[in-house]
Amino acid sequence: MPTLYYYPGACSRASHIALREAGADFELQLVDFARAEQREDAFKSVNPKGRVPALRTERGILTETPAILTYVAQRYPEAQLAPMSDAYEFARLQSFNSYLCATVHVAHAHSRRGERWADDPAAIEAMKSKAPEVMAACFTLMEEDLVTGPWVLGDTYSTADPYLFTLTQWLPAHGIDSVRYPKIHAHHARMLERPAVQAALQAEASP
Amino acid sequence: MPTLYYYPGACSRASHIALREAGADFELQLVDFARAEQREDAFKSVNPKGRVPALRTERGILTETPAILTYVAQRYPEAQLAPMSDAYEFARLQSFNSYLCATVHVAHAHSRRGERWADDPAAIEAMKSKAPEVMAACFTLMEEDLVTGPWVLGDTYSTADPYLFTLTQWLPAHGIDSVRYPKIHAHHARMLERPAVQAALQAEASP
Repeated sequence: MPTLYYYPGACSRASHIALREAGADFELQLVDFARAEQREDAFKSVNPKGRVPALRTERGILTETPAILTYVAQRYPEAQLAPMSDAYEFARLQSFNSYLCATVHVAHAHSRRGERWADDPAAIEAMKSKAPEVMAACFTLMEEDLVTGPWVLGDTYSTADPYLFTLTQWLPAHGIDSVRYPKIHAHHARMLERPAVQAALQAEASP
Repeated sequence: MPTLYYYPGACSRASHIALREAGADFELQLVDFARAEQREDAFKSVNPKGRVPALRTERGILTETPAILTYVAQRYPEAQLAPMSDAYEFARLQSFNSYLCATVHVAHAHSRRGERWADDPAAIEAMKSKAPEVMAACFTLMEEDLVTGPWVLGDTYSTADPYLFTLTQWLPAHGIDSVRYPKIHAHHARMLERPAVQAALQAEASP
């Protein structure tokens, strides 16, 4: 049975929701960021990057959200979480998930993990103060150019949906109300109605 | 016939090499960063993100290197550029490409595109001065924990190889000699022997 290493509200939430959408039997393993457990040797032996999510499988440990999401989709094909038989549609999905991972998540990280990219406290502060503007630009681009609706890819629900949902939930930390992005705002509300999403939120609320 | 929008030496080189490895018929379209063509309206209508690579296909335009690489692998299956029938191996590939996209490329971008994440010139300078240290940490992690050898995934050549090759070529800009990473250094030399790599380098050298 796979084990998902997670922290409540972190980007691991996307993989968590996907596992529930897939109807997978899995275990959750909390990595306690509050005491920096992700930087301890014990967790580094699971994921040398010191990050969540990590998914322990019977063949080894997988990291990086886009990879775990596709693994879940492929491993539990009945759930139809990725249009893998259509190269173009699958590429649209991968493209969206890459953008979330490499641009949107990275924009967010500058508000709280600036020490990854600069040592000077003033520089870290400068990144923090620009982060809401960068996040807003990302969400504007997604709203106008990337999100089709009702789901990210259009009529087909996919792994892009829990991933977008997870990062949409980071907007309030930047003082941004998702109502500024009507399609994404409606998407977030639509996600909240799904039993898999409700179950994941509940499990993360009482670890 | 697909058209790849590229700039010589940019991360679009990975997709360029993959198309040649696949034996694809394709066209190259230079996006001239030297005159900031990527920020002009004409190119923004191709890719609103204002970045390369973008791949024009008969069904629409695809962006983001990990997505384009998988699209090429899936579209030209005879070339066997991705182990798509094995969910775990395919996830390893996706995980590596995600790391290159969201962590290594992002580390590099802080040396020259700091204005994405801060306005203060001193902050941009602080990012630039830390970039070589962050790049070195990324390559140490890949050398020690991610790259199997002789190819990224082991004995099987995949789309991870042109992507790693492309980013390895950015090390000198950070004053880093790839010889510090023996497996990756040997990988780079091995890549240079491949006809597809030689053809891509030659095409990018005389656009």
